[in-house]
Amino acid sequence: MDTPATLIDRALSTLRRVVIEAVEPEVDGGKFPIKRCIGDRVRAQADIFADGHDQLGARLLFRRAHDSDWQETTMRLIENDRWAGEFQVNDLGRYVYTIIGWVDTYGTWAADLAKRVKAGVDISVDILRGVELLQSAADRARGADRRELAYAMERLRELAANPIVAVEFAQSAELAELTNRNRDLSQDTRYERELVAVVDPAKARFGAWYEMFPRSCTTDSKRPGTFRDCAARLGYVASMGFDVLYLPPIHPIGLTERKGKNNSLVPAKDDVGSPWAIGGVEGGHKSIHPQLGTLEDLKDLQGKARELGLEVALDIAYQCSPDHPYVKEHREWFRERPDGTVQYAENPPKKYQDIYPFDFESKHAPELWEELKSIVVYWAEQGFRIFRVDNPHTKPFVFWEWLINDVKRDYPDAIFLSEAFTRPKVMYRLAKLGFTQSYTYFAWKNTSAELAKYFTELTQTPVREYFRPNVWPNTPDILNEYLQKGGRSAFAARFILAATLGASYGIYGPAFELYENLPIQAGSEEYLNSEKYEVRVWGADNPNSLKDLITHVNAIRKASPALHGDWSLRFHPTDNSQLIAYSKVSGDFSDKILVVVNLDPRNPQAGWVSVALKELKVGNDEAYQVHDLLTDARYVWHGARNFVQLDPSILPAHIFRVHPIG
Amino acid sequence: MDTPATLIDRALSTLRRVVIEAVEPEVDGGKFPIKRCIGDRVRAQADIFADGHDQLGARLLFRRAHDSDWQETTMRLIENDRWAGEFQVNDLGRYVYTIIGWVDTYGTWAADLAKRVKAGVDISVDILRGVELLQSAADRARGADRRELAYAMERLRELAANPIVAVEFAQSAELAELTNRNRDLSQDTRYERELVAVVDPAKARFGAWYEMFPRSCTTDSKRPGTFRDCAARLGYVASMGFDVLYLPPIHPIGLTERKGKNNSLVPAKDDVGSPWAIGGVEGGHKSIHPQLGTLEDLKDLQGKARELGLEVALDIAYQCSPDHPYVKEHREWFRERPDGTVQYAENPPKKYQDIYPFDFESKHAPELWEELKSIVVYWAEQGFRIFRVDNPHTKPFVFWEWLINDVKRDYPDAIFLSEAFTRPKVMYRLAKLGFTQSYTYFAWKNTSAELAKYFTELTQTPVREYFRPNVWPNTPDILNEYLQKGGRSAFAARFILAATLGASYGIYGPAFELYENLPIQAGSEEYLNSEKYEVRVWGADNPNSLKDLITHVNAIRKASPALHGDWSLRFHPTDNSQLIAYSKVSGDFSDKILVVVNLDPRNPQAGWVSVALKELKVGNDEAYQVHDLLTDARYVWHGARNFVQLDPSILPAHIFRVHPIG
Repeated sequence: MDTPATLIDRALSTLRRVVIEAVEPEVDGGKFPIKRCIGDRVRAQADIFADGHDQLGARLLFRRAHDSDWQETTMRLIENDRWAGEFQVNDLGRYVYTIIGWVDTYGTWAADLAKRVKAGVDISVDILRGVELLQSAADRARGADRRELAYAMERLRELAANPIVAVEFAQSAELAELTNRNRDLSQDTRYERELVAVVDPAKARFGAWYEMFPRSCTTDSKRPGTFRDCAARLGYVASMGFDVLYLPPIHPIGLTERKGKNNSLVPAKDDVGSPWAIGGVEGGHKSIHPQLGTLEDLKDLQGKARELGLEVALDIAYQCSPDHPYVKEHREWFRERPDGTVQYAENPPKKYQDIYPFDFESKHAPELWEELKSIVVYWAEQGFRIFRVDNPHTKPFVFWEWLINDVKRDYPDAIFLSEAFTRPKVMYRLAKLGFTQSYTYFAWKNTSAELAKYFTELTQTPVREYFRPNVWPNTPDILNEYLQKGGRSAFAARFILAATLGASYGIYGPAFELYENLPIQAGSEEYLNSEKYEVRVWGADNPNSLKDLITHVNAIRKASPALHGDWSLRFHPTDNSQLIAYSKVSGDFSDKILVVVNLDPRNPQAGWVSVALKELKVGNDEAYQVHDLLTDARYVWHGARNFVQLDPSILPAHIFRVHPIG
Repeated sequence: MDTPATLIDRALSTLRRVVIEAVEPEVDGGKFPIKRCIGDRVRAQADIFADGHDQLGARLLFRRAHDSDWQETTMRLIENDRWAGEFQVNDLGRYVYTIIGWVDTYGTWAADLAKRVKAGVDISVDILRGVELLQSAADRARGADRRELAYAMERLRELAANPIVAVEFAQSAELAELTNRNRDLSQDTRYERELVAVVDPAKARFGAWYEMFPRSCTTDSKRPGTFRDCAARLGYVASMGFDVLYLPPIHPIGLTERKGKNNSLVPAKDDVGSPWAIGGVEGGHKSIHPQLGTLEDLKDLQGKARELGLEVALDIAYQCSPDHPYVKEHREWFRERPDGTVQYAENPPKKYQDIYPFDFESKHAPELWEELKSIVVYWAEQGFRIFRVDNPHTKPFVFWEWLINDVKRDYPDAIFLSEAFTRPKVMYRLAKLGFTQSYTYFAWKNTSAELAKYFTELTQTPVREYFRPNVWPNTPDILNEYLQKGGRSAFAARFILAATLGASYGIYGPAFELYENLPIQAGSEEYLNSEKYEVRVWGADNPNSLKDLITHVNAIRKASPALHGDWSLRFHPTDNSQLIAYSKVSGDFSDKILVVVNLDPRNPQAGWVSVALKELKVGNDEAYQVHDLLTDARYVWHGARNFVQLDPSILPAHIFRVHPIG
């Protein structure tokens, strides 16, 4: 039963009559932050209402997490008790936001007064009520506000005899602001949660990634490439317009159970091993493979890359080869098998005896976690800010939540890319708990319907508040069937899709631009002669390379603000399922890009695109120009339905910029 | 920065690796209860997953709120990390439910063992691992479980030499149950919230209501009807098959500012006033209008009604006439105008000087609230359990939340019907905070598209967890344009819609069955000569009365389990927008009802219904019989598309029972 005390509490709480609910953006009831980049806006909405019919006021409060003072911005009713407001995030790190609402007693009175005057009703008593309301505001006010409210009371009394002027005065914007500012704050409803926005650097939203094995930067597979050789190839990568150069693990590689070429269990003497079998006598996750060079060489590579506009990204793979120093020094961080040996990685019945996973359930987890975090911190201290994280879904969620948030407190510009290709809810969970970007299912979405459904989910649902796709047509682990069977045209089409569907995208090269497409065996997505297990010598000057197309598309991306984000993505119907059409626009619609891709790598395909003109802010009867940025051809289109024909042997896509005519 | 202590906390929490989220049903993050009726099932679902690829276990926990022990039921993976389980609620009042999940280490090991054996891998070390897992379960177990686990360890060791039998043994259901039961409970993830289900009597879900002014139970408007006269008409109401007889307020009516006939401001001497202008010298909300009779008469009416299967519902209208005793005795419960008078109700510029609202913002709110609650408790003590609450949206939300929950603690069978016709979010809020049922927008949904959209929202979205529609084609305040203009056929069509779309529905009679359709003026929904302001003499024996149709439909409702709930409602397309088709089925599909209504009250309409056969569990190529329960006609239909023709001058609807043939 209620005690009288709780009853009174409830009775008093009734004074806060406003309800604030269904707040957006909000991830899982505020359990996780939303993500933004510097300069972005947070557009917040909420259902805000009270009993009865009184007018309400509402404001969006926001501050940087480490500031103590809130900033406020007015929220407006947009429809059906839904209110909206927005603020801009201009600093890296965390912002906090919430909402307050209140019954605008004065505003309600003023609006009612207007209705009464319009109806010719006597208002003498109503004026007195208005004076009462101004008096109570004045009692709460100080300084100039108090004086102005006192003046307003006097003026209102005077105007009792002149109802039309009284209404005008009572409803003035100044008086509305003055009374709202000096309202009874104890009656404000404050939304029950403070929500968090993590603000990342712009590169978290927009960037072209290039993955390259430094040891393959060589002309002789017997002489693995070094960081210096890699530095010599920076020009090649930069000239194609990439923003991030991602290097697979650069650490010493284990000898025990080392895998040979093509994942062989019986390595040849000179086989170089997998970079993900981390750790040898030369050291572990904070060491560099001696064959690649020194820390100085790496820093030099990074410096040269930055001069060319490239940021070097490192790989964080929390696992060990049997030769990793941790295995000797911290045996307690690994699980022991009943026969006393260290538990290797398994996917029963498969065994990966060259890899020891950490035991995150060990009672030594605190020390283990600290050490693992110190690896990221170590590389951050060396100036690196972008980390591609290997298989995060096989480590506990709370570990990542702790690590990423902790590292980002000191390095708010750090970017963590989640390399998980697992079940959707697990991928989304990793994004929620802190990963800046995430790999996607793009490689397995090859039809028009699959692509539209998936990218609509990623860009037009609440998923986008926390999950930032980084779209890869290939990786060293993924050579999909479409690429295996479609030849050069398939690579071109998938490249254009990745680079325009994803503001962030990446390719694993030079395998990609040289359209390397042989799998280790039919039905497998593994590369034949994979660089994971051997040094490859690439003829990057191959005249059929997709290099020029890549360079061209990256230049278009850079010059098109529409392609710098994913939230404006819209698909447009076509009458040929081999043709996919979609658009992106810049926030102010000054840049509008319409992409049409022929998904059939073998045959020319033609059909009609039904352009959703509204999405491009083109009038129904308006003629407009579509300018193909790939070929420089220009066409005048009119209305929604327009004919398109694409021959994959020439170019599988149009990237149109849409212009008004005249 | 994290202190080492919080780090260790987090590290330990990693042991609870399972995530439980997106739990359904759950209203606003568990802030409000879901609603069920006795005998219903709660089907709970959740996303349940962990890092990695281990097998999981999950259970749904539930208990009556006042019990201390939880009951458990197993949850099953249904798809894509979504799990489901269910329990039945057999008692009135509150239930609590939540979910636990865990990594099924033993089950994972057993499944892996099976894969290894299938691949012909040596399992000697794996068997030892299994023994370890059984040992740790045994360490936690007691009694018989402990002995059985010890035996299982021994047996498993023995079977090492016989892998196929070992797998069979390891994967046995008994061992799965034994190990799960004795798992390490400290690693269980428990969903962060305990959710509440309020269990109401069956009448909260299914019932036909009849509203009647007792003072009009007379043959002479100069001699207002009494409870005794009303009792004499119970047979009439019961014979039509109604379950609830709702009486407008039965209290003394004020004289001051009393409204005359047709809401006139100048009443005649003998005008009876509005029953909602509650309170006079004879008393207030706990008193009975002397012209109606005594408390004994009322109790007698209630007793006789119950004998006929009717429950009497009372009206709770928290407002006062100027003559209400509260106005004198508790002036502090009302707002004062600046001229010292009591603030009357207003909707500027309109004034309702015969009504004084309570001031819920007064500092005397605690006493006021207690008194208002005592009104409901008083009538509950007199044996009443159903309350139709007038205009709840003009009183604070928290007031209702407190009142309803408090009353239902002592009277869990109480039913509160919310008479709010305001903005949707406000109506839904009132339902969330405790109203058992709610009036709807049905009266203003007259086209096929409007009806399908609205009733789909009410029955197929999370709204249904808390908002139970009670569907009224008319009320003393609402005579919609369709009824005004469509004549008898319009009343028949709207009746059948209400009675089949809504498991709970009601009519205001005899105005309804006598299809009274004159508004006070064109464009108004107010009745001419409204019973709100005068005594009406009804000729209930009018041969054109809809009484027989109503009787027939109510009998069909009672005999059709499909019509006892709303959640199975599905709309079926037709090629004529004047024809609406929808179905309801019983939980086991033994009863399947398909309704087709001609919405055009003037003209016969014909067209093709595309029956969504799957919803009725009818095969695509199956013939089936549709038996019109209204006319007893039987048709054999085949496949989805079937022809229907309805002449409103005869009957505007089919109510088919769908039968298999043969």
